[in-house]
Amino acid sequence: MSYFRENIERMVGYVPGEQPTDPEVVKLNTNENPYGPSELVMAALGNMSGEQLRRYPEPTAVMFRETAGEVLGFSPEQIICGNGSDELLTMAVRAFVGEQGLIAYPVPTYSLYRTLAHIENAGFVEIPFGANWSLPEELYSSRANLTLLCNPNAPSGTMIEPDEVGHLAKKLDGVLVVDEAYVDFAQSNCLELVDKHKNMLVLRTLSKGYSLAGLRFGYGIGNGKLIAGLNKVRDSYNCDAISVLLASEAISDQEAMEANAGKVRDERERLSERLRGAGFEMPASQANFLLAQMPAKCPLSAKQLYKELKERKVYVRYLEQTHLGDCVRITIGTPEQNETLLQTMRDVGIEI
Amino acid sequence: MSYFRENIERMVGYVPGEQPTDPEVVKLNTNENPYGPSELVMAALGNMSGEQLRRYPEPTAVMFRETAGEVLGFSPEQIICGNGSDELLTMAVRAFVGEQGLIAYPVPTYSLYRTLAHIENAGFVEIPFGANWSLPEELYSSRANLTLLCNPNAPSGTMIEPDEVGHLAKKLDGVLVVDEAYVDFAQSNCLELVDKHKNMLVLRTLSKGYSLAGLRFGYGIGNGKLIAGLNKVRDSYNCDAISVLLASEAISDQEAMEANAGKVRDERERLSERLRGAGFEMPASQANFLLAQMPAKCPLSAKQLYKELKERKVYVRYLEQTHLGDCVRITIGTPEQNETLLQTMRDVGIEI
Repeated sequence: MSYFRENIERMVGYVPGEQPTDPEVVKLNTNENPYGPSELVMAALGNMSGEQLRRYPEPTAVMFRETAGEVLGFSPEQIICGNGSDELLTMAVRAFVGEQGLIAYPVPTYSLYRTLAHIENAGFVEIPFGANWSLPEELYSSRANLTLLCNPNAPSGTMIEPDEVGHLAKKLDGVLVVDEAYVDFAQSNCLELVDKHKNMLVLRTLSKGYSLAGLRFGYGIGNGKLIAGLNKVRDSYNCDAISVLLASEAISDQEAMEANAGKVRDERERLSERLRGAGFEMPASQANFLLAQMPAKCPLSAKQLYKELKERKVYVRYLEQTHLGDCVRITIGTPEQNETLLQTMRDVGIEI
Repeated sequence: MSYFRENIERMVGYVPGEQPTDPEVVKLNTNENPYGPSELVMAALGNMSGEQLRRYPEPTAVMFRETAGEVLGFSPEQIICGNGSDELLTMAVRAFVGEQGLIAYPVPTYSLYRTLAHIENAGFVEIPFGANWSLPEELYSSRANLTLLCNPNAPSGTMIEPDEVGHLAKKLDGVLVVDEAYVDFAQSNCLELVDKHKNMLVLRTLSKGYSLAGLRFGYGIGNGKLIAGLNKVRDSYNCDAISVLLASEAISDQEAMEANAGKVRDERERLSERLRGAGFEMPASQANFLLAQMPAKCPLSAKQLYKELKERKVYVRYLEQTHLGDCVRITIGTPEQNETLLQTMRDVGIEI
């Protein structure tokens, strides 16, 4: 006899990427920004007092909502904050989808979506992306309570353009969550759709563009009524005093974020070219990573490449997912890190 | 038509206590520790680097689990960490209770328990405490999937002794969560029961005894199998890099925690005596607050007293709950804060 719900007993938990602590590792496996956070963030951290830790935080992260609202052109009532955008995904599932409910999303995508459906014991429909990672028609007619669209998508890095996302939002009966975790590296975004579609929620994180994966801070932007309802399922003190302060500083410093994102984009183009030159195939990425399919002539499988690189302290991500092909996902690092990657690939027999 | 689940549409969210930002307020309303966190915590905060923020945290908070395991005499596999013990309560509800499931708890108690049942759309049974806040017999036979026991209880401050809690755990078919948020101010605790009862989970927080309400860090201790299952519903990076480091430092400094808890206990006895002398009735508290029932002869109601004090910048908590009587809940402050409270009570016409 088990104390757990049957769906929990049955499921396997989400498996996060490896987080090696060895500082010598060239870590290109979990899509962190290779550059550090804004200096404003570090200054604010240095000014934290014991008094701020002793007391409960303001429960709605109003400081961040006001700052982000001003930067992005929304009212604070249209913003909700979470302990990483992962927590906001959990909130959306709990608010819009019950055990009778249905979640839909195109695949391959962020594997947490399926885990969240398992935890909720909800139904889910996984619809393969169309050719060239285009939006599959079936997504329009799934009748899901909640449709999830990772955009730019992980692990492909590809993007559905805002016009098409707006068209999808309009057609859906349920809620559309656009998970824009990687949007700071992309050419466009879906924020302008929020005021046009009452059923749309855009999720953002400070983990990638703002170099704050260690902080766990994300936010959602949507119609005020949607945000008010989501707040009912939010833990009342879900964001700690330090993260609210640091996230506010980070988002106020758009210049620092843009500068780092620009460097990442430049390296993304350079690395893409090098890999394509060696026969790797990959979709054009709008994110801070590349999904590289092994060259036909290469004697190594993606899994073997991952292992060989790991032995030499270069970590990339190997993902076993259907419809994905034989790929590794490579986070864009600094020019030096990317050179080390290329050199190590040569060391293991890739002609590059 | 609503995008929300019916149970979410219907429910009212949890209402946290007021968090005024005016530094002049004497804040005795949300059970914060009046003394600051350990110096080790502040030193660790000062040493945080941008690199620690840029990277994802280790996903299982192993540093804390090892440190706490050593301090408390458990293996790291018996410990799970959360973004406040509130998140661990959410995890327990999601892991053990579905829409078909049942939650039971004695009342009056922490009002979040009912909110969590509403969010999950689960059944719940609220059983009034017996005379003198004793454990009600009906709790033994509720057949709940999850029984919650806040111990010491909020808002009464009273405690069920470990022997009786062990007896309850043994009789229950489902899981027993003992929420020990306030245990650092009590004479006993239930940790020694964990290895005797496979269905028991003890929750702790660093918000109260360790003066870190702003940090949002809690942990649970239980049987290894129970903890492994709970980990399936945990967000994979639920604890941020700063909180794991600071919480580890805090729990390693038992001396600082004990010193502050001792001062709070001394003041609790002194303030109890003063209030009882003025005709307030209150159960003997094992927590860092007092549940004070208005004197029969007093012209003010508890709500009026709360308002009058608030106008004079002294915040206590007024709770409207059935079975509670006409009470205010007063957090134990520093001797100076408590004197200000007593003086302000005199100012509004209480003979004390």
